[in-house]
Amino acid sequence: MKNLPSKIIQAPMLGAQDSKMTIAACENGLIGSLACSSLSPEELCREIETIQRATSKPFNLNFFAHQMPEITAKQTAEQNKFLSPYFKEFSINPDNIPEGVIRRPFGKKQAEIVEKYRPQIVSFHFGLPDKNLLDAVKNTGAVVISSATTLQEAVFLEEHGADFIIAQGLEAGGHRGNFLSKVEEQVGLFALLNSMRKVIKKPIIAAGGIADKASIQAAFTLGADYVQIGTAFLLCTESKISPIHRREIQKNIADKANFSTALTNLFSGKPARGIINRFMRENNFISDKILPFPYAASANNAIKKEAEKLNKEDFSSLWCGQNPFNCQEISTAEMAKLLLSYL
Amino acid sequence: MKNLPSKIIQAPMLGAQDSKMTIAACENGLIGSLACSSLSPEELCREIETIQRATSKPFNLNFFAHQMPEITAKQTAEQNKFLSPYFKEFSINPDNIPEGVIRRPFGKKQAEIVEKYRPQIVSFHFGLPDKNLLDAVKNTGAVVISSATTLQEAVFLEEHGADFIIAQGLEAGGHRGNFLSKVEEQVGLFALLNSMRKVIKKPIIAAGGIADKASIQAAFTLGADYVQIGTAFLLCTESKISPIHRREIQKNIADKANFSTALTNLFSGKPARGIINRFMRENNFISDKILPFPYAASANNAIKKEAEKLNKEDFSSLWCGQNPFNCQEISTAEMAKLLLSYL
Repeated sequence: MKNLPSKIIQAPMLGAQDSKMTIAACENGLIGSLACSSLSPEELCREIETIQRATSKPFNLNFFAHQMPEITAKQTAEQNKFLSPYFKEFSINPDNIPEGVIRRPFGKKQAEIVEKYRPQIVSFHFGLPDKNLLDAVKNTGAVVISSATTLQEAVFLEEHGADFIIAQGLEAGGHRGNFLSKVEEQVGLFALLNSMRKVIKKPIIAAGGIADKASIQAAFTLGADYVQIGTAFLLCTESKISPIHRREIQKNIADKANFSTALTNLFSGKPARGIINRFMRENNFISDKILPFPYAASANNAIKKEAEKLNKEDFSSLWCGQNPFNCQEISTAEMAKLLLSYL
Repeated sequence: MKNLPSKIIQAPMLGAQDSKMTIAACENGLIGSLACSSLSPEELCREIETIQRATSKPFNLNFFAHQMPEITAKQTAEQNKFLSPYFKEFSINPDNIPEGVIRRPFGKKQAEIVEKYRPQIVSFHFGLPDKNLLDAVKNTGAVVISSATTLQEAVFLEEHGADFIIAQGLEAGGHRGNFLSKVEEQVGLFALLNSMRKVIKKPIIAAGGIADKASIQAAFTLGADYVQIGTAFLLCTESKISPIHRREIQKNIADKANFSTALTNLFSGKPARGIINRFMRENNFISDKILPFPYAASANNAIKKEAEKLNKEDFSSLWCGQNPFNCQEISTAEMAKLLLSYL
């Protein structure tokens, strides 16, 4: 596949979608994506089968390519101390917190599933998996996409086998794909796209802050070959975000001038963009006191669960990009048609 | 003045320019700007007279509109402790550091100078000055420009008398203009411009990451009425950056894939974007241990001076935007012609 089958990709959004959105996107002229990193192998197979029964269009399976870190007792104790005011506030015993669903990296099992189901497109976040795993994917004929957040990462991806490279502007909601760069080095889409176009020969997919006709056209003007759009789908019927997450996006869209997001590592251990809430404000957005990705999520989930019982968004990861003003309460099919009308 | 006399403004760049660049920009079809905040009233008058002798074209005087903070002995002691390894390394006695040139906010004297010389355009960074001072400027007939780094700041500026509003994307080099928002809330130009255009009725000037034909066109596509360009002029003949600053920009442009900037408050007390160096890396970019703006600059200047004697860029504020790849060793006149050819 030298060209992707649509100019617009529905961004994979872990926690915000399942195969229903993928199918609706595919059947309505976009490239539908499925965020796979929290699915067990069995769940992943079921989701792929659901997609393949419903559509014959090409779809994109997205995996995280992080390394699983070793966690020491000291790190856990440090996180527990850091979170102790919140454990106290919500009467949580940190020793009784379940690990819950952990985001696992792309591994041997996932490669076997790709070999079995042969999706046309496989994308990675946080770099690329080990060479043998990447080769297994490429040998199926799938095209490989990965995200660059800096020019350096784009050059790395081009040299290490990515077929299409995402320019993930720091406007993007959710997790940064950064794997060589620090959170402080993240680049705005405007500059990232403009400079990547001068250096990168592979096709470029622009992501982050793209929502409407002007922004899609501007991305192409800056040298993008495709655009990937996530935040615009967050209020769609098929979106699986929580009622509290939905409420906060709606509130912020209505009150445009007070809308504010930031990058934070507090929810998962890796930097991601979400609407600013109490947990982020009280801890200055970035902390080295929490467990590394993906382990920070377990304790956060326990606190969030209790806060959400009280209808509070204070500890929820309210992932959202910097340009949510075209979010609409419509179906994914209708959003797909709207976005395609901008081309 | 309902329309600015050129689509392209040469950005005011404190420390990187004087009236020579302003004049060359004005005489070659741009709006030339002069960064005024480090000039004494006498120096300011001389610079304006120099400009007015050399060109009859409209020019832009740029002032900072910050508040001067009170400094306590405790804050100074805290900064001295924070910087003590560097004082030791360069044998600096912190009690003997001269205050040096301090960036002063727009005040009564500056307003009188505006009333006397009547520049056609006056712009502010860090918000707007007090109402009586702003009224004094507006009563001269000058149009007023100020920078927004978030939608909230843009709405504030529109409601408080700015005639033209800069969308300063976080790609921009040098000081952020933020005055209501935190450094973590800064927005990429792509999203800022797209969302400001939906809310703001006043003309918008796009800034940050704009350097070439594609980026100028994309800014207009996203809704900008004008563009302001700074970084592209940093290597021009009229640029007053130090040889070390020039060398570091050249080196980074040549080695595109390792180019990296970050926002830091370490040099002045307020966040600004520069090429990453040792001082930034060793102190994690942002610190609350240094004196508030503008007072942090004095101690930094003392350390920088010693490091530069050893030909080291380690403590120099290497201001630079995220997209410097169209910087060229040409005259401001030639750069102006090049930029105008992109329209």
